[in-house]
Amino acid sequence: MATHIPSPSRATGAIRTIAVRGETVSERPDVLAGEEPMQIMAAGPGQAPVPVAVTMRTPGNDEELAAGFLYTEGLIGRGDVERIEFGDPARVAWPDNEVTVRLNRPFDASTIAGRNFVASASCGICGKASLESIEVRCERLAPGPSVSRAIVFGLPYSLRASQTVFESTGGLHAAGLFEPSGRLMGAREDVGRHNALDKLVGAMLLAGRLPLAGTVLLVSGRVSFEIVQKAAAAGIAITCAVSAPTDLAVNAADRLGMTLIGFLRGERFNVYSHPERVETEV
Amino acid sequence: MATHIPSPSRATGAIRTIAVRGETVSERPDVLAGEEPMQIMAAGPGQAPVPVAVTMRTPGNDEELAAGFLYTEGLIGRGDVERIEFGDPARVAWPDNEVTVRLNRPFDASTIAGRNFVASASCGICGKASLESIEVRCERLAPGPSVSRAIVFGLPYSLRASQTVFESTGGLHAAGLFEPSGRLMGAREDVGRHNALDKLVGAMLLAGRLPLAGTVLLVSGRVSFEIVQKAAAAGIAITCAVSAPTDLAVNAADRLGMTLIGFLRGERFNVYSHPERVETEV
Repeated sequence: MATHIPSPSRATGAIRTIAVRGETVSERPDVLAGEEPMQIMAAGPGQAPVPVAVTMRTPGNDEELAAGFLYTEGLIGRGDVERIEFGDPARVAWPDNEVTVRLNRPFDASTIAGRNFVASASCGICGKASLESIEVRCERLAPGPSVSRAIVFGLPYSLRASQTVFESTGGLHAAGLFEPSGRLMGAREDVGRHNALDKLVGAMLLAGRLPLAGTVLLVSGRVSFEIVQKAAAAGIAITCAVSAPTDLAVNAADRLGMTLIGFLRGERFNVYSHPERVETEV
Repeated sequence: MATHIPSPSRATGAIRTIAVRGETVSERPDVLAGEEPMQIMAAGPGQAPVPVAVTMRTPGNDEELAAGFLYTEGLIGRGDVERIEFGDPARVAWPDNEVTVRLNRPFDASTIAGRNFVASASCGICGKASLESIEVRCERLAPGPSVSRAIVFGLPYSLRASQTVFESTGGLHAAGLFEPSGRLMGAREDVGRHNALDKLVGAMLLAGRLPLAGTVLLVSGRVSFEIVQKAAAAGIAITCAVSAPTDLAVNAADRLGMTLIGFLRGERFNVYSHPERVETEV
């Protein structure tokens, strides 16, 4: 196997971003990692394909992902793969996002029936369908609040100060909720970034404080589509992250009316969508 | 809501690790982030609980996680929660790992029937059951190979050099496979760390090169239980990571006979299990 080169078409997405660097604000081109859902299916000779899992992935090496997932989950053996097929272009909008592993022996659907796949978030087969479905479920976010860049610069310091487990282990994601003044309303940690956000939203739900319009979210890692989806469901209009967003996260944030900020480090950040909530005057 | 303090009991796990710092090797205590599976269920008045999802999470704030997950996935509304119950200690070994959200209105199980939850890996309800199940599925890894500390120090540089998308976006996880000599056999990138590993294993599967005994894996992020499980399924005996492992990852690696290395940065790393494969002589 040679060292790979991802298929360039959808492994990355080109956009324009607003770069805030201290007191300087400029618009510039940027490149994001691609993120799209992929349905993995398995079928024996003459069998109809059985849906096994949907995973959010970066397009490219998709046959390998389908075969590798089935193998590392113990659902197929080393010599079982006959061939790998993509979806029928006459039937599905994004054939690359539907991959069927054809086996040289029957696939027993009961092997997955009793299994509890670890769930993070739900979505459709193609990014478009899934974006449409969350727009049905989540109302488009209302205008406001607005936050100053100085407040944004300070959020990671406040979140880090609240991370008791991270301090000792270096191993946890965190999600923090802030007022536009920068006051920390609450923070939660977890090995899973989605879980940290779900704990934070769940705490607010149980305290009768939803929806969270008028608040600012900061997550410690990257921003995937699922993080944007969960934040929008809770009514959060400004989502900040220490690392990069995916292209699908930016697409979803744009359509849902969410301000998405990434690479928030020191006196620097990028605004990927709805910059009108960020006061960039000095 | 106050800023939280995670329940100290299982949010972290204390272990002893072998710390390699350049030419110095010492044993020292370390603290890891806790990771355990949690089953989320929902039920209306008088209804039997419906299993909705299993998530790998850090114990603590579990009621919030269950309620928050159901809310951000659009399965319950703001005023639906009646109370939250943990598992029956008479029936399950780890009551805290089974959380039921009791609603004040019927829960319609069909709302989850048609949904494709994003899957990463499968496991049981409690860590013990799940560890036992992978030990059945994965054979315990055989002794060897061995790798020198100088080779280990160099792996992240080789992997980074192969990461074409990461270079441009800063947003992808990577998994690289190496010979014990340090030669890169292949690398894959993805927004999901599990996907990067599945693509790598899938490439080797399709090339007829499994099992991967005699190779060394490096992943760019943290090491969860699922990464160890997938690597073990592929026969990989040495797994290295740039960041921290969870306690369950170390537990699984120890029992499966895998050498687990974390915090591999510059001329430093920690060995969490089976150090016999790492040559620490200068």
